[in-house]
Amino acid sequence: MLRFNNDYNHGAHPAILKALTDTNDNAYGGYGLDEVCDAAKEEIAKYLQNPQSQIHFLVGGTQANYTVIASILRPYQSVLCAESGHIAVHETGAVEHTGHKVETLPHQNGKITAGQIEEAAVAYETSLIPEHITQPGMVYISSPTEFGTIYTLRELEDISAACRAHGLYLFLDGARLGYGLGASDNDVQLSDLARLTDVFYIGGTKCGALFGEAVVINNPELQKWFRNNIKQNGGMLAKGWLLGLQFLTLFKDGLYMEIARKADEYAMQIKEAFAKKNIPSFIESCTNQQFVVLTNAQMEALEKNNIFEFESRIDDDHACVRFCTSWATKQEEIDSLVADIAAL
Amino acid sequence: MLRFNNDYNHGAHPAILKALTDTNDNAYGGYGLDEVCDAAKEEIAKYLQNPQSQIHFLVGGTQANYTVIASILRPYQSVLCAESGHIAVHETGAVEHTGHKVETLPHQNGKITAGQIEEAAVAYETSLIPEHITQPGMVYISSPTEFGTIYTLRELEDISAACRAHGLYLFLDGARLGYGLGASDNDVQLSDLARLTDVFYIGGTKCGALFGEAVVINNPELQKWFRNNIKQNGGMLAKGWLLGLQFLTLFKDGLYMEIARKADEYAMQIKEAFAKKNIPSFIESCTNQQFVVLTNAQMEALEKNNIFEFESRIDDDHACVRFCTSWATKQEEIDSLVADIAAL
Amino acid sequence: MLRFNNDYNHGAHPAILKALTDTNDNAYGGYGLDEVCDAAKEEIAKYLQNPQSQIHFLVGGTQANYTVIASILRPYQSVLCAESGHIAVHETGAVEHTGHKVETLPHQNGKITAGQIEEAAVAYETSLIPEHITQPGMVYISSPTEFGTIYTLRELEDISAACRAHGLYLFLDGARLGYGLGASDNDVQLSDLARLTDVFYIGGTKCGALFGEAVVINNPELQKWFRNNIKQNGGMLAKGWLLGLQFLTLFKDGLYMEIARKADEYAMQIKEAFAKKNIPSFIESCTNQQFVVLTNAQMEALEKNNIFEFESRIDDDHACVRFCTSWATKQEEIDSLVADIAAL
Amino acid sequence: MLRFNNDYNHGAHPAILKALTDTNDNAYGGYGLDEVCDAAKEEIAKYLQNPQSQIHFLVGGTQANYTVIASILRPYQSVLCAESGHIAVHETGAVEHTGHKVETLPHQNGKITAGQIEEAAVAYETSLIPEHITQPGMVYISSPTEFGTIYTLRELEDISAACRAHGLYLFLDGARLGYGLGASDNDVQLSDLARLTDVFYIGGTKCGALFGEAVVINNPELQKWFRNNIKQNGGMLAKGWLLGLQFLTLFKDGLYMEIARKADEYAMQIKEAFAKKNIPSFIESCTNQQFVVLTNAQMEALEKNNIFEFESRIDDDHACVRFCTSWATKQEEIDSLVADIAAL
Repeated sequence: MLRFNNDYNHGAHPAILKALTDTNDNAYGGYGLDEVCDAAKEEIAKYLQNPQSQIHFLVGGTQANYTVIASILRPYQSVLCAESGHIAVHETGAVEHTGHKVETLPHQNGKITAGQIEEAAVAYETSLIPEHITQPGMVYISSPTEFGTIYTLRELEDISAACRAHGLYLFLDGARLGYGLGASDNDVQLSDLARLTDVFYIGGTKCGALFGEAVVINNPELQKWFRNNIKQNGGMLAKGWLLGLQFLTLFKDGLYMEIARKADEYAMQIKEAFAKKNIPSFIESCTNQQFVVLTNAQMEALEKNNIFEFESRIDDDHACVRFCTSWATKQEEIDSLVADIAAL
Repeated sequence: MLRFNNDYNHGAHPAILKALTDTNDNAYGGYGLDEVCDAAKEEIAKYLQNPQSQIHFLVGGTQANYTVIASILRPYQSVLCAESGHIAVHETGAVEHTGHKVETLPHQNGKITAGQIEEAAVAYETSLIPEHITQPGMVYISSPTEFGTIYTLRELEDISAACRAHGLYLFLDGARLGYGLGASDNDVQLSDLARLTDVFYIGGTKCGALFGEAVVINNPELQKWFRNNIKQNGGMLAKGWLLGLQFLTLFKDGLYMEIARKADEYAMQIKEAFAKKNIPSFIESCTNQQFVVLTNAQMEALEKNNIFEFESRIDDDHACVRFCTSWATKQEEIDSLVADIAAL
Repeated sequence: MLRFNNDYNHGAHPAILKALTDTNDNAYGGYGLDEVCDAAKEEIAKYLQNPQSQIHFLVGGTQANYTVIASILRPYQSVLCAESGHIAVHETGAVEHTGHKVETLPHQNGKITAGQIEEAAVAYETSLIPEHITQPGMVYISSPTEFGTIYTLRELEDISAACRAHGLYLFLDGARLGYGLGASDNDVQLSDLARLTDVFYIGGTKCGALFGEAVVINNPELQKWFRNNIKQNGGMLAKGWLLGLQFLTLFKDGLYMEIARKADEYAMQIKEAFAKKNIPSFIESCTNQQFVVLTNAQMEALEKNNIFEFESRIDDDHACVRFCTSWATKQEEIDSLVADIAAL
Repeated sequence: MLRFNNDYNHGAHPAILKALTDTNDNAYGGYGLDEVCDAAKEEIAKYLQNPQSQIHFLVGGTQANYTVIASILRPYQSVLCAESGHIAVHETGAVEHTGHKVETLPHQNGKITAGQIEEAAVAYETSLIPEHITQPGMVYISSPTEFGTIYTLRELEDISAACRAHGLYLFLDGARLGYGLGASDNDVQLSDLARLTDVFYIGGTKCGALFGEAVVINNPELQKWFRNNIKQNGGMLAKGWLLGLQFLTLFKDGLYMEIARKADEYAMQIKEAFAKKNIPSFIESCTNQQFVVLTNAQMEALEKNNIFEFESRIDDDHACVRFCTSWATKQEEIDSLVADIAAL
């Protein structure tokens, strides 16, 4: 059986395991205050081109999301988010657990627009009862989104401008950022995110690492005591250099970009295979997640050799399912899947 | 320079790195629902001898502590704890952050007694204003403690009885549990903890793993939705098998016990070296952490070749410092340190 | 100018002020442990006919809502609620502030159905990823709703059955309960609420008192330490007898029912006046709140003599507005308003 | 029986009941946005002499304390407080419930010193592990304290200077402020508090009102969204003018000062009566609370005619008890008690 169900079903890129093994006899300082983390930050900083950006390594995505959000908001503030946003639907209410409402906006292919943000901000600003409702304090977006779509540079510029015009912080969840940067349609660079967002993170768990997310805080106001927030929220790894070492390996020679680009190419092969069979996409995605609408018979046929993720039932005979590639996907696995699709 | 400053300054036991490398091409289910975690739980269960015990793997200690505590207490309840307890002094108020007061009791060598717990419970039960004060809902102890001391079986039995008599849950933080189990003075087994506590955890981070703590919930009342708590608190690793694999490696052939026992033996060599020079212990410890009182000159002399941890100043000429061994310590490192001590 | 904008713009029924004055020289025990509160509870209990019900007096509605909800839910649980529910839209995220997600369901005239609750419960129970999403732990409804509509006995029985079938607690917000009990369409008694809900509250603030809500806990599981929750959430009035005295005054001779019934009758006069002019209701309400759709010209005309509440703009020429009666409304005020409506 | 057990066992000063009755037919805007609150603020402002001060009316003391504290602190911050402070010992962990640690300092007669604050601040600033411990973010003091003692102007100036030097906000709990202002030893005016603290509150509940506390925010940084915090924390009374009316009555002709001064004089008569009998004070208090050490026989004798509060047992034959006067105390009650004391 081949696993296309998600992008976190394998360990790590072999270069990371090698780095762990090579350094295993070394002793390091604790809690991320070590030379490996410093070196990793330097490598990432080359891409950011923003001398004000500050980098922290956290273990996982949910942790990164709620730690960032709770560190920014005041008690009476909420975070604006697409109704399909990860924090709204897949994190067990972790953000509400920190005391803050997640205010959802309708999404278009997983995305929200500057216009929607503007509208929500104005609605609060012009409310006759501002103290009786939650005050939007920040905007959360993810790119790639939960549907594999990505924001264009223009969209991000507009969102960033809307946020700044209304005093909202902008946070971008980049759990799958590599696959966004590697997409052929992409026109956004890390330096754009370092310029346009207040905080974003570069996903490691789904993009080649065993685990780990690199949180980048671009707004100096939000930087000073972030380590205290990390520790309080259980996100400060004792052996912090393990995070640094993984990101150093991924960023020092562009490995991060390279493996993501390849995973995207594999995804495009899957996409084309479905297209050739006139099997419709649920949402058009240019990244490593492909959502298609299959008949029950098609699902059954593909399940013989492949594991993929059931998303939602559409009608009695159709369902939306997800096929993922990752840094671990191999061409022969794609060939096998493509053949299975062709045989439908 | 030799690092004796803590027990989390090296990667992992080589067997763990080998296991990671050997399994790196495998694909697993996510979030700890995989066969490796199942196998690890089976190995640990052999030691527990309590068919009711349930095991969960979390990433780190602070996370394990507050997730367990917050999952148990009702909003108006507090946790009783030695004033030297890790949750009281070294976790950035993570427990308070979940909404609960940490009520501290004076410690004796890092430990509290059944009598103190009894007294605190009775004080609440007989309070004339119970709704105006926090209600003790559970007891937190650590063994080994933050001073390297350990509870005896008799002490644990008394504490457990006091807790049960007063409706308090008992939680034991075993971040350094291996070093307690491996101490020559120890008379407590994992099966005792599975019998006497409601929850405890087996530390991996400080005892041979890259990271990870195995939380054991013995009280069935506390088990049902614990995974929801883990996820909400950011403790659910996407690649959960990485935790299972480490604990499987540590427990399948008794590696965990073996490496801790050796670290304790090394610590005894350090202890003896200081004793020979009549350098006083700050607190008598039988585990891998040794706290001694050095003069400024002695500190300076030892700092030439060794890194150790400054704890607190005692007077102008004396300070308490800590020397730690770990699973990574080598006999030649001990020999070097012992020679340095002998030369004081 | 006559104020029809809300039902909390006057002090208290004169009988309450008289009772306060008459008892002002008495000394009482603090924090609600006094003979006046006891007497008030006895009077209310006569209506409840449930010997298990326990009564507590809190100061206000938002406080009652979040204190009850937070006292019931476990950290990973959410509360189900109509999207128009007071806790979802008018309490500054107070429930989220206690750590819990408010999961909204589409409303029908402010109400939700047993079927919707059933569906949400089953969705959770059959989820493939239960630990990644919030778990419904209770249902919040209000009656009268925020639109003045009320649940029928049959609807409440169905909702209660659905909740019990799925292990959900049922909480009814009765901030305007009097006006529901007094409505000519009503077939629900306090004893029904004491039988069908786990917790509900009897609103005082909007129904004749200066302030105060009587929380009735019918489920014995939820009773034991509720006073601790009240105190911790700032809801325990030092001079608790002030609350008891108000509810004693309202309940000892049926005053509560009487004044609410009269306010509802006044509201019906307003309703008829609009109906005669073919001015449409926004939602059909049988209680003291009337929502109608006015043209801009009609609004302007009525604003000459009357204060009413703007709710929402419907189109360029129409808006939804609210007219409220209360225990303080007088027939001559209604006559004046009715004449103004007739003159439109 | 005469009640000297506390200062909240009677309703309100008759002038307040009269004002409530006189205005009961008026209609007002909701939530504290009304002309009565405005007038009350103006009267209080005359005493403050600080044009930057902003005033809010809350219902009770615990609510005022945690709402203010939670509105100020960042998640990882703690509040410094005397170990006898009300928030540390009598509020059911309400501050921890908002997520913040209360860090206690040893008290001297209920008070802490600028030196202690300085020391705690420096300890944090020089900590080698600042992210592992809670960061003091503010200082909470009460005056009069829980023992009836008061801070001198010099002490407050020193504390204020220490706070400002170390970036700590200063919050003074004035639940019994009137009795402090009215003490013959007092050299602190409301204008001093408006100058030296960031926030303080003027207690109404214990000083003549039915209920209510006037929170004064002097630091403009802390003002902007405080109403949102009040609402979210359940402290926004729908009929807000009830609070304004009480404070207007208390402040417009100096009634607040007058009634407190008289209560203090009565307390001095009690104090002298005990002194004449050589019955020791537990702590020397110049305000309305008197703590004395009685023998069991003396307690029994005084309990015949009087209700007073048991505080703590000192030894088998002695206990500390509290006698309180209040705005409601009458000279004949004092005469009776003094006679009882003389007869011991």
